[in-house]
Amino acid sequence: MSGSLTVVGLGPGAAQQMTPEAVAALEAADELFGYGPYLARAPERPGQVRHASDNREELDRARAALDRAVAGAQVAMVSGGDAGVFAMAAAVCEAVEKGPDAYRTVELSVVPGVTAMLAVAARIGAPLGHDFCAISLSDNLKPWELVTARLKAAAQAGFVIALYNPISKARPWQLGSAFDLLREVLPGTVPVIFGRAAGRTDERITLATLSEADAGVADMATCVIIGSAETRVVERPGLSPLVYSPRSAR
Amino acid sequence: MSGSLTVVGLGPGAAQQMTPEAVAALEAADELFGYGPYLARAPERPGQVRHASDNREELDRARAALDRAVAGAQVAMVSGGDAGVFAMAAAVCEAVEKGPDAYRTVELSVVPGVTAMLAVAARIGAPLGHDFCAISLSDNLKPWELVTARLKAAAQAGFVIALYNPISKARPWQLGSAFDLLREVLPGTVPVIFGRAAGRTDERITLATLSEADAGVADMATCVIIGSAETRVVERPGLSPLVYSPRSAR
Repeated sequence: MSGSLTVVGLGPGAAQQMTPEAVAALEAADELFGYGPYLARAPERPGQVRHASDNREELDRARAALDRAVAGAQVAMVSGGDAGVFAMAAAVCEAVEKGPDAYRTVELSVVPGVTAMLAVAARIGAPLGHDFCAISLSDNLKPWELVTARLKAAAQAGFVIALYNPISKARPWQLGSAFDLLREVLPGTVPVIFGRAAGRTDERITLATLSEADAGVADMATCVIIGSAETRVVERPGLSPLVYSPRSAR
Repeated sequence: MSGSLTVVGLGPGAAQQMTPEAVAALEAADELFGYGPYLARAPERPGQVRHASDNREELDRARAALDRAVAGAQVAMVSGGDAGVFAMAAAVCEAVEKGPDAYRTVELSVVPGVTAMLAVAARIGAPLGHDFCAISLSDNLKPWELVTARLKAAAQAGFVIALYNPISKARPWQLGSAFDLLREVLPGTVPVIFGRAAGRTDERITLATLSEADAGVADMATCVIIGSAETRVVERPGLSPLVYSPRSAR
């Protein structure tokens, strides 16, 4: 029997934000692959084999999962958030393209999920309410000059910017450097949202202005949203402020 | 008793892609507001009042919902896809900012969902696999010159571009004009994905090249994804091609 591989977006973390489609895909699998902490979110099922891996080595992990599917297994690969946004779906597609012909015969599907920037935005209002972009701040896979060129182009064109992978032990200075660059283009009053573990019990949402934004607030589990010059902060008595980007522009 | 307003993202259309959090928010509401076809997706509950409205008049709809919350009702406002992406959350925040003080006392929350571009991307591989942006092609609320400036900036900087609201009876020429503009910046071989009603029974996913992309393929229910120069098409024997944007860049 021919196997299959489903790349599953688990959503930002809370079980309440995982779609029924994702739950069903996990239940249908004989074997699960993924980064350990994501795998731990999948409900246990007797007889199901789990292959936990390191956060890196995405291409190796994709190949291992494709090998099992070629061998006939029903395989699921778990991803945090959405499977297609800075996550495993692209690595699996790349492995298919570069791998043996057999990989192209695998029945491959992708289950979308709520990606981090959407979960963070929801906790504070609607900062992604007008045109926006998503940029991975990691320079492991692309030159830093490309990151800065995109940051600058996006800010100058008035996009709200969501930053994924803002900081890690191996990449400690990039977020601060990105803030410095953006301060040259955008008003210092632009709102910056640090959204850590949105929707989870250890959630922490922090609001700052661009001029005062401190990269030290972010960690690996943080998605950073930087408003445009149009983004508004609405103060509310006794309630946390709302941040939104208006649908209309001058 | 004080009322509340929850803006709920229903996901792209299939019940399997609606989060449990969204289902719970709909169940908890005394009154539902929203565009008719979205409201129709919410399961019926005895005693629940429904206020269906036209697709336009978003600010009026937001005010009507806030008025009911101020009066003490538990209100839900439904949105297609994600509530914060070209949807009702920004309109509600705007109504709060511009409205009477009482609006600022309403307990307001937003439930995120799977937005259209994620659902479309999942059906064809991982076209949003590297940095990307989302642009509404509607010039109802912003000047067309701003749309074209953003399209150009995004394409030049190497972002994949997801277009929302690509076409309507009142805006028949904008998508074709956007393709013309992008052809001046990007190679004609760049993949273009027309994703109509992703995940629904009437889904239609169409792949073209930028040089051959025909705006007539899109309708109001379509999200259009335009690749970058890096985006790849992987042919598979007997299976539909995969489209993905590699994580790594030159």
